[in-house]
Amino acid sequence: MTASQRVTLAEIAAEAGVSLATMSKVLNGRTDVAPATRARLEEHLARHGYTRRSTAQRSEFIELVFHELESSWSMEVIEGVEDVAHAAGLSVVLTVSGDRHEPGPEWIDGVLRRRPAGVVLVFSDLARKYREKLRSRGIPFVIIDPAGDPSPDVPSVGSANWSGGLMATRHLIELGHRRIAAITGPEDMMCSLARVDGYRSAMNAAGLPIDLALIRFGDFHPDGGETAARELLALDDPPTAIFAGSDLQALGVIAAGSAAGLHVPDDLSVVGYDDIALSRWMSPQLTTVHQPLRRMGEEATRLALRLADGVVPDTLRMDLATHLVVRGSTARPRG
Amino acid sequence: MTASQRVTLAEIAAEAGVSLATMSKVLNGRTDVAPATRARLEEHLARHGYTRRSTAQRSEFIELVFHELESSWSMEVIEGVEDVAHAAGLSVVLTVSGDRHEPGPEWIDGVLRRRPAGVVLVFSDLARKYREKLRSRGIPFVIIDPAGDPSPDVPSVGSANWSGGLMATRHLIELGHRRIAAITGPEDMMCSLARVDGYRSAMNAAGLPIDLALIRFGDFHPDGGETAARELLALDDPPTAIFAGSDLQALGVIAAGSAAGLHVPDDLSVVGYDDIALSRWMSPQLTTVHQPLRRMGEEATRLALRLADGVVPDTLRMDLATHLVVRGSTARPRG
Repeated sequence: MTASQRVTLAEIAAEAGVSLATMSKVLNGRTDVAPATRARLEEHLARHGYTRRSTAQRSEFIELVFHELESSWSMEVIEGVEDVAHAAGLSVVLTVSGDRHEPGPEWIDGVLRRRPAGVVLVFSDLARKYREKLRSRGIPFVIIDPAGDPSPDVPSVGSANWSGGLMATRHLIELGHRRIAAITGPEDMMCSLARVDGYRSAMNAAGLPIDLALIRFGDFHPDGGETAARELLALDDPPTAIFAGSDLQALGVIAAGSAAGLHVPDDLSVVGYDDIALSRWMSPQLTTVHQPLRRMGEEATRLALRLADGVVPDTLRMDLATHLVVRGSTARPRG
Repeated sequence: MTASQRVTLAEIAAEAGVSLATMSKVLNGRTDVAPATRARLEEHLARHGYTRRSTAQRSEFIELVFHELESSWSMEVIEGVEDVAHAAGLSVVLTVSGDRHEPGPEWIDGVLRRRPAGVVLVFSDLARKYREKLRSRGIPFVIIDPAGDPSPDVPSVGSANWSGGLMATRHLIELGHRRIAAITGPEDMMCSLARVDGYRSAMNAAGLPIDLALIRFGDFHPDGGETAARELLALDDPPTAIFAGSDLQALGVIAAGSAAGLHVPDDLSVVGYDDIALSRWMSPQLTTVHQPLRRMGEEATRLALRLADGVVPDTLRMDLATHLVVRGSTARPRG
């Protein structure tokens, strides 16, 4: 369908039996239209695949949405987004959704009112109804490290999680470890699954058996790492090395090791994931997989701005490279 | 002066020899007025102490400005600001200024356009010209942990830095330490000075001599702590305990101790400051002064919103209490 054939907002309003003014209010996220009417008019917009034509009025904002801010992780992503937004003359509106799977309903109304140049979601997912609302207003969105498996038409920026898991495990194998455990993140997150699959492949490639008792799911926080490590270290045949899945989980693993009287790295080798700024200041300095968090924030924002400018990129899915950083928390096994 | 006596924007425009439309543009941060004209009209506004009367139109934003985002510190403040803003139905616009002393000139234009309910600045200061611009638009601002010594009419939220320095040092004295060093933050920040003054008072109260060689200024980052600790530990009569001034500096102190073959806490006691979320996950768990970072963010935002509502608080300066958290990085000195 060419631009001239596109249905106009006035035509959709007429079809729905409302005034153009009412239709406009819904398009702009105004809340002075009854909820039932808004829902009905949204359906009309979605059915026609209506997309607002770009207006001369330039947006002032980039929307950045986190489901939580707890980790040191978030800070580096924010810096990357802020940098690119600032260079483009845009301000960052930061929302903490509190829900890993989608921001709340009042959020989408705010976004439609603010008309940002683009939306960057971290570690989240966006319900179909929200995607449709953004699409019909011509507001592009990009997901960083999507929680679920996004459909191919959802723009996203991630990192090479599988390779990261593979490199971390291969490093431990090369040091001579055979009983190697893996603690990854929540079971419903793609990055968790990819990291542990990398672990499995490294074990398989080295001809080492995979013991399911040595694979655990955590929460990407220190608590999750500590709980899983305590269980692992209490096994009859405990691991001599643990791939901790994240730097924060590695802190929990080191604490559990310490509580069990084990010294890292002499008695227990630990590999983190992320390479947060503090990982080189931990005791011992953490061997970890570097994930380019800041660059992920930058690239996601650049992608959103390119989409806002009407550029169609070659691919909507970008995975940045990861690499292993060897520091002091890994060593040859004893004996 | 009562409201009826207040000079109107039209009167100021007439006095300045411009149209009301031009004067309005300047008031709203529009950049389509020549810079020289804008500067001249700002002077007229400032001279009359013009304050925009509150309009029926409710603001959508709280502006949050950091000079840097590097530390784990920032995250907890952001969470506090976000929580209160969200509860008030406001969105947070986050700016990283990159300059400890004031945000850039393009920032103020953006703020005037966005007309936030209030501005919260962290660890920053606001130049007089910016304060006047905000005041003339009726936009309140609150500074968290002001870098300099703010004038009494600048609303600010801090914490009891002096008491924190006192408690940290007294704890080390009670453990039996006599050679106690203090590393504080940058010399031009009030919180740095207050913390080290608390250290001095605790030493004085215990009748211990103050050795100026044992007092250092850092940067509140791990590097600063490491550099200062390396120098302290190389002294002929090195300290047996170090009050590190911040948790991040404590990480650097522990690293320097480790490099010098010293075990914390057996050979060297270390006290941090802040009690960031990770401090209980460090090895050893960090003894530190708890600063209510999240609550500081909340209170600053509440104060800004009260000021926006025209409430005149009893005091514009609020200092929240600090307390000592004893964990594993402090012990009696050897011998």
